[in-house]
Order: sequence, then structure tokens, then C-alpha cells
Amino acid sequence: MIITQNPNAILDTIIEKQTYSSLYLLSDSNTYTKCMPVIADSVKKYNIQTLTITAGENTKNIDTCIHLWEQLNEKMADRHSLLINLGGGMITDIGGFIASTFKRGMSFINIPTSMLAMIDASIGGKNGINFGSYKNQIGVINEPMEVIVSPIFLKTLDRRNYLSGYAEALKHGLIGGKDAYKVTIPFISPSYERDDFTSFLQKNISIKEKIVAIDPTEKADRKALNIGHTIGHALESLSHNKNEVMLHGEAVAWGMIAELKLAELVFGKKPEILPEIESFIAEHYQQPPMNENDFNELLSIMKQDKKNYKSEINFTLLKEAGQYKINQTATENQIIESLKYICKLCKS
Amino acid sequence: MIITQNPNAILDTIIEKQTYSSLYLLSDSNTYTKCMPVIADSVKKYNIQTLTITAGENTKNIDTCIHLWEQLNEKMADRHSLLINLGGGMITDIGGFIASTFKRGMSFINIPTSMLAMIDASIGGKNGINFGSYKNQIGVINEPMEVIVSPIFLKTLDRRNYLSGYAEALKHGLIGGKDAYKVTIPFISPSYERDDFTSFLQKNISIKEKIVAIDPTEKADRKALNIGHTIGHALESLSHNKNEVMLHGEAVAWGMIAELKLAELVFGKKPEILPEIESFIAEHYQQPPMNENDFNELLSIMKQDKKNYKSEINFTLLKEAGQYKINQTATENQIIESLKYICKLCKS
Repeated sequence: MIITQNPNAILDTIIEKQTYSSLYLLSDSNTYTKCMPVIADSVKKYNIQTLTITAGENTKNIDTCIHLWEQLNEKMADRHSLLINLGGGMITDIGGFIASTFKRGMSFINIPTSMLAMIDASIGGKNGINFGSYKNQIGVINEPMEVIVSPIFLKTLDRRNYLSGYAEALKHGLIGGKDAYKVTIPFISPSYERDDFTSFLQKNISIKEKIVAIDPTEKADRKALNIGHTIGHALESLSHNKNEVMLHGEAVAWGMIAELKLAELVFGKKPEILPEIESFIAEHYQQPPMNENDFNELLSIMKQDKKNYKSEINFTLLKEAGQYKINQTATENQIIESLKYICKLCKS
Repeated sequence: MIITQNPNAILDTIIEKQTYSSLYLLSDSNTYTKCMPVIADSVKKYNIQTLTITAGENTKNIDTCIHLWEQLNEKMADRHSLLINLGGGMITDIGGFIASTFKRGMSFINIPTSMLAMIDASIGGKNGINFGSYKNQIGVINEPMEVIVSPIFLKTLDRRNYLSGYAEALKHGLIGGKDAYKVTIPFISPSYERDDFTSFLQKNISIKEKIVAIDPTEKADRKALNIGHTIGHALESLSHNKNEVMLHGEAVAWGMIAELKLAELVFGKKPEILPEIESFIAEHYQQPPMNENDFNELLSIMKQDKKNYKSEINFTLLKEAGQYKINQTATENQIIESLKYICKLCKS
């Protein structure tokens, strides 16, 4: 991973380092307009062919894969070509999957343009698409050749999308421990050009990188990164089913509160950090579109989670900042209690 | 890879070794009827759920993937489940791809039932599906947890299908050198229960296994296995377009003759082995449905080959048995000369 204020120059260096048979840029209707101009010099200089898809999580499906595989075929891509993914998590997820499977694998690099993709989605090699009503159901784990992180793309981001990515940074802070968590708090309001923001990004991403390096295929340690994600994913899916879409990080933020409450119920001791986190999130994040009538649907979504083993819902729970426990289970009553807890927070 | 006369017992051992959350058996309409009974005891004992698809290479497409991913979802498969692929290359190819991509990867084992799958398709981790008019265009490289090879399944095979697989064994012989090639010749007529056939399978497969171990992702040495395959794949695709389907190995057999002729044109010296190989193949294999009017289509198919680099058609050519040269190119005239050569053989 490279952090830079000049992604165009870094991209040039990467392209010059090897002889690719052809080059492709994948972006969506938003990032093509807002972010592509930043690297337009490279695109022109190296005759990079552009592939553009509709923006939005709904595009991350098998039909788009079929369309992109066809496009790569038509444009004579081969396994010595390079795919450059320019966009948020939707683009790096589907682009990584397309590249990993086209002719059994071509090289790809990620240039994440959203806070979520910089902090999380484009790091660690997970890629894939949504399938049926489930998120990231089909995919592989395959590392990009390089990830170019540049805060200048964040200028194109609205507040809601910044916060969505910031929730994952907060999660990394909680994994890193009390100090790492405290360092994260001020960057709820960032200045993208300041050096302290760049070094915050670097340190925060390195928390994830270290975990992934130990356990790339999520046999154990990597599950730390699932904090807030079992309930978070369910909230996100529910919001899509209801057509009141929550962004991924928004759902994870509320998922973290619910799962800290669940940790209290499972371990019999309230995490010290819970009151502070819950008021911080409730202050900054919009509420999930849920009520008590949705609990059954949420549970049934959780039962389909990729992380499960023998149909038992799997959680990574925080006893305290820095102290996570993987492969935790809970009773349905405990899960419902935790969901009730965030419902109540929303009403208050 | 395990060679056994009792695949049922070996399967039991593998299943007992780990705790899988659920078990699935993928077969096609033929192998379900003809091969599943051999392992029916395990299927019953471990409550293995069956997934059955239509037999034939035409099934190896993205629509079948979508159907199988949906089935695994419905049957509550998770990433701790095991998929057992029972069938020929079509089943091990699509089954390996399905398992490698479902929830970003579940375990799978291959039980090849055809000579082609035993000798070649199920060994080495290549999997995938056909896409557009191109073979194995979409896929990944991912090793099965185990491959159970049992000659007893070959009893279900007709002569044409045995010969198709045998062509890949012949190719391994040619890679191994003059002695390895000579050892292969008598097994054009095998006795499946004899020990010398089992030990022939073992040695022949190990030629491929050694190459794959050195270079799993086909950066260099693994390209040895592409002998006969550039022209062979084109013949196979052409035969599908013409609805006069050649089996994979049949096409590879004729491809090997054409590419030995091409080696003569490129290196300026006829491989000593050519006359013997060409009469052996012409005697045993049915002729490709091609004539001189098909040369342009064959060339255009070769230009889309996964093995190409910068749109140049890539060959692995044999100077002599045991002496292969990877990353060879040829002029269009030379390629057409080689195609003419096999056309002439067919007429004579």
C-alpha cells in the first residue's frame, strides 16, 4: 500500500515497472467524472482503455460481471493485461473479482476513492459480488498487486460517505486498543491535505494489514475484523430490502453498538467503552430503518452469514477495546435483546 | 492424489478427518447414474446432499454456476462445507470454480470418473467455465483438498472417451521423454483392474504433478502442458461451432500432430517422433471436422487464446520428445501450413 498526494505519478511508476500487454481502467459513472481526471495524464499516455459501470451497490452483481468479462474479451484483454480499479468498495470488490477470474487471473491494482475503500475494502484481497439477497456471497481472496491510497480523492466525498468509511477506521481503533481508539476520534472531522490525516490513515490501515498478513484466509485472527459486522450486515441487507438504503459503514456503526451490548450479555460484564461509543455513534450516524417487527427478518439474514459454522450465527465480540474474542455464539434471545437495545437508542 | 480400487473407503477417511458443517456431491446426469452407486454407502452414511446437472460440455457455463450457487444457498452450505465433485472434466472444472468462489471459498475434493479428468483436468488446480465461444475463459487456480483416482470408474467409459483422456497421457509421455512416451503406447488398450495399469496412471499423473508443483500459476514450466493445445483448443471450438463436436483429447491429439509440424517449420528440423506419432493418432482417433475454408476461423479462435501475450499466438513446441520450448510464436503462414498438414493427413 502506498499513500500519496500524487496518485498519477505513482501509477506511472507502476505501469513502467512491467510490460503489460494492455491496460484497462474500471470506474463507475461517479468516479469516472469526479476521480478519473486526477489520473487522466496516465490514461492518455499509456492508452488505458476505460470500462465504466453504473454507480451504486446494486451494480455489484453477476450481470455486471458478465458484461465486464464480455468487454474484456472484445477489447482483447489477456492474462498479461492490467486492470486498474478506480472507485469505492463497489468498484474494488467487483473489479478484483473480474480480474481474479478472467482467463484464470490477470493483474489488478486498486485506487480506492472513498474512505471505506481506502480504510477497508481495497485492503486485504477480499473481493466479490452480491448474490441473491446476500452481500459478497460470491468471490475469492486474491491480493491486488498494489493499492494506491490518496486522500485527495476524499474531496469528492459527501459527509455521509466519509462517515461510512470512518466507521471501519473506528473499528480498527477498537481492535488496536484504547489508545488507537482515542487517536481515531478527532478524525470524525478531517482535513484531507494535512499531514496528521495522512499519518492517521497510514497507521489505521496498518492495523488491518498486520492482521491480514497473519491470517489471509480468515481461519482465525482475521475474524477480529468482523466486529460489528454480523448484526451490521443484517441491518444493511434489511435496509436494502426496505428500499431505505444504509451505507455499509453506517450499518457497521450501529452493528458495533449492538454487538458491544451482546458482549455484555454473553460475557456477563459491560464493556467500559460501550457508553462512550454509543453516544458518539448516535450523535454522528443516521438511524437504521428498523423496528421490533424486523427482528425475525434480521435473524434469518444472520443465519445466512458467510461467517457461520453449522448454521450457528458467528460473532467476534469485544470484551474491551483491544480484547476481542472470535467464534462467539449467542442465544436468539440475547441477539434480540441487543437489537432491542439499538431500537431503544434510536427512539430516544 | 490417491489411487485406489476402493474410493468409498478413501472418501470415508477424508470425511472423518475433519468436521464439515455439511456435505454436497456434485455429479451430472450420467455420473449420478453410473458412478454414484460406487460411493453410495458414504452418501447415505454422511447424509451427503446431491446436486445434479445435465451432462455435457455445454452445461459448463455461467447459467449453471448461478443455478449451483443458488442451490448451495438454499441448502444452507457455508464456508466450512465440503463439495465432492464426481465426474469428468466438466464436473471437476465447474465444481472447483463453484467451490472456490462460494462465500469466497469452501473446500472441495475431486473424484474424476473419466480418463481425461484422472490424467489431467482434476490435477493441478485449474478450474472454470466456458464463456462466450471460448473455453475455460472464466476461472481460478485453486487446488482441491484431495483427488481420489480410481480406475474402476473407467469401466463406465466408452472407447471414444477413453481415447480422449489417453491423448493427455500421451502428451505427458512426450514431455517426460522418449522412454516415458514408449511406456504409454501399450495402454491405448487398457485393463483397468491390472496393477500395471494402476502404476502407469500413477507415473503418468506424477509427470503433471511435478510440473505443477514447480510452477502452479503457469509463469513458465507449467506451459509444457500446453503442447498441442493451441491448435487443439481451436479445433475443439471449431467443432462446437459446427455442431460436430470433437472431444477435448481428440482435438489435442490432432493439435499435437499440427504443432509437431509447426515445430519443424519454426525450428527448421523435423522432430524424429513426428512420423510415428502421426500414424499412431491417425489410426486411433477420428478426424477433425475441418477443411481449408476453416483456416481463418481457426486463426481467429487462436487469437483469443488465454495463453497469448500482446495478441501474439503462443505455442509450446516440441523439438523432440522430452525437449519442449515454451513461449514460441509463428507466422500466420506457418500456422496455416501446419493446419494444411493435418487436413492432408485426414484426406489420405
